[in-house]
Amino acid sequence: MHCDTLWHNAHLATLAGDDGLGIVREGVVACRDGRIVHAGPAAGAPAFEAAERIDCGGRWITPGLIDCHTHLVYAGNRANEFEQRLRGASYAEIAQAGGGIVSTVRATRAADEDALIATSLPRLDAMLAEGVTTIEIKSGYGLTLEDESRQLRVARRLAELRAVEVAPTFLGAHAVPPGVEKQAYVDAVCDTMIPAIAAEGLAEAVDVFCESIAFSPAQAAQVFEAARAHGLAIKIHAEQLSNQHGAALAARHGALSADHIEHLDADGVAAMAAAGTVAVLLPGAFYFTRDTLVPPIDALRAAGVPLALATDCNPGTSPLTSPLLAMNMAATLFRMTVDECIAGFTRQAARALGRGERLGQLRDGFDCDLAIWDIDAPADLVYRMGFNPLHARVWRGRTTVSRRDS
Amino acid sequence: MHCDTLWHNAHLATLAGDDGLGIVREGVVACRDGRIVHAGPAAGAPAFEAAERIDCGGRWITPGLIDCHTHLVYAGNRANEFEQRLRGASYAEIAQAGGGIVSTVRATRAADEDALIATSLPRLDAMLAEGVTTIEIKSGYGLTLEDESRQLRVARRLAELRAVEVAPTFLGAHAVPPGVEKQAYVDAVCDTMIPAIAAEGLAEAVDVFCESIAFSPAQAAQVFEAARAHGLAIKIHAEQLSNQHGAALAARHGALSADHIEHLDADGVAAMAAAGTVAVLLPGAFYFTRDTLVPPIDALRAAGVPLALATDCNPGTSPLTSPLLAMNMAATLFRMTVDECIAGFTRQAARALGRGERLGQLRDGFDCDLAIWDIDAPADLVYRMGFNPLHARVWRGRTTVSRRDS
Ligand SMILES: [Zn+2]
Ligand SMILES: [Zn+2]
Repeated sequence: MHCDTLWHNAHLATLAGDDGLGIVREGVVACRDGRIVHAGPAAGAPAFEAAERIDCGGRWITPGLIDCHTHLVYAGNRANEFEQRLRGASYAEIAQAGGGIVSTVRATRAADEDALIATSLPRLDAMLAEGVTTIEIKSGYGLTLEDESRQLRVARRLAELRAVEVAPTFLGAHAVPPGVEKQAYVDAVCDTMIPAIAAEGLAEAVDVFCESIAFSPAQAAQVFEAARAHGLAIKIHAEQLSNQHGAALAARHGALSADHIEHLDADGVAAMAAAGTVAVLLPGAFYFTRDTLVPPIDALRAAGVPLALATDCNPGTSPLTSPLLAMNMAATLFRMTVDECIAGFTRQAARALGRGERLGQLRDGFDCDLAIWDIDAPADLVYRMGFNPLHARVWRGRTTVSRRDS
Repeated sequence: MHCDTLWHNAHLATLAGDDGLGIVREGVVACRDGRIVHAGPAAGAPAFEAAERIDCGGRWITPGLIDCHTHLVYAGNRANEFEQRLRGASYAEIAQAGGGIVSTVRATRAADEDALIATSLPRLDAMLAEGVTTIEIKSGYGLTLEDESRQLRVARRLAELRAVEVAPTFLGAHAVPPGVEKQAYVDAVCDTMIPAIAAEGLAEAVDVFCESIAFSPAQAAQVFEAARAHGLAIKIHAEQLSNQHGAALAARHGALSADHIEHLDADGVAAMAAAGTVAVLLPGAFYFTRDTLVPPIDALRAAGVPLALATDCNPGTSPLTSPLLAMNMAATLFRMTVDECIAGFTRQAARALGRGERLGQLRDGFDCDLAIWDIDAPADLVYRMGFNPLHARVWRGRTTVSRRDS
């Protein structure tokens, strides 16, 4: 059998199937035309004639990591707010001083495409250095058609500048822009912005921040209907600060995912399970905002809701660019198991992005996106804090980040 | 004025003096023979004839980071225990299965010097990649003279293999070795091990784990007296799980530092303040063990006790190799300010290692250990999670880790 590249002398966590890590000791992965044509035990594998054979030296291969919820593209820096809060400033004082999300909107509006690329690329590169091969990127700091579109164009340009797949999401309904009435803004999102963004192909999904301090469930429903009418997938920021029943609403609209969901109740869990909506848990935001209410993970598990994880990379509540650290936080703070943490950044994250049939597993026909790790066992990826054991990153069959053997 | 190297077009956080960050905008640092001969504003600086001039491009320079409490040298891997605990195993079940510190002792005893170097070097390199220029390394996983000495020889070899200063600490009184009676072991530590370690110059300080599950205050005092008798400095693991009054005891013996101290009381604070003993806070262990009792930081501040921070890098309770993440945890979980977090890994950490007159500040006559950062302001070092903005690391005037300009 012919292939372009054969990785051998490796252990695999294939994540294939619906459960567990799919461990294969002494495995091989074969790639042709950017896709996996074989992933399994070396013993009994077809005899491959490979153009390139890569000896992995007993390292572990997992699917490339997938970060399914980020606000990676923005300008400005809110470290100063963080510093002020540690000195005792209240949220109100910071808002009065021009801080909060408004400051990110101001800086992002003022930044042209090149400036946004320059500020976002180091964040993306930090992700890639930890084995990320697919990343979702939301708009939401422009809050006008022009400024939101520019954020999404930058997301697209990032995918041209680096060997990574970007899933762009329109999050116009992130906050109400200064000086605009809330319902008038929602109408603009639905009647002007979504149609224009869909027409230009700038996003594949639409997200809404459904919360007492943001948009109501009725407004979220209005946005979902507009998204659906224009052929876009939907997702939601729900139940982060209070139970608005947003996750159930989104599930009934066929949402790919409901994200945060610390305050989710049993009805919400049932609605998500019935719809196949993925739960995207964001432990970085939980940690950074010193939240104490853990999402209802036992109930989600019991109902069979897929659990994905993401960094939520954003300047206000989760300035996190490390999927590995997000895994450790999910284990330490949420008591998710090692298998759940790794599946949360691979198989389940792929499902949260509607890519479950193509990404997130080492499996025949899936895209050949790999992370190759210098570890003793998969648990090392979750257990350690602030250590990056990535040896090589492979995107569509090509090695794009490789650490020299020392 | 002649110098070897002049760093210019930089902002400085000098940490000079007793308080704050010592910010100098538009500063220069000049080095001769590995020492700083000038650090201050460019305007008004002496006219330097420099053999080498380094344009820092507006980046920030801080003192090189100092990690003043680590158990970096060990063998074995306890990710499997972490995994088992997440699956619901109790500490007793893990101990029955041969886990816990005993497993690290077993693996460390079985590892020769080269094996210990091989397993420890990636951890050290992760630290250096974040700008560490001085690191304390404790023994404590050998628990026999031979095995403890080997750990300390490895610490010394690490300092030969990398451009870093290592402060070696003998922590024979870390745990009671299997099959040995506790007081008999303390007697061996005091009567045999400390004299031999001191004679060979393998450690500069002696540490004790004073806790209900480890050694009593009386036993700690016995160890301190032996250490003093052999000219070694002392420090203590105190009040982590309960208040044993170990910090006050150590302070009365003139300890450099008391570390952990979650359960420290007012008498302990007063004793530390009176003795000038540094408080070494370890937020990584607090986070990883899901502790809820924050050290009495307000009382320590009010009493003027210097607050240092460290990673506590160890396989059981803090598998952390990121000083930057430790800073974020200190801010997020302990509400330490940005200034305190950065001082905790520079000026105050130097004091905790008895090196306050030579390290941890950008100041005439101090060793020229620098970290040069791609940041907007010092707060960025504390605010971000899982992102490393180090541009270059300088040890004794020589650039040893440098990131290419992209
Ligand atoms: Zn978000
Ligand atoms: Zn320790």
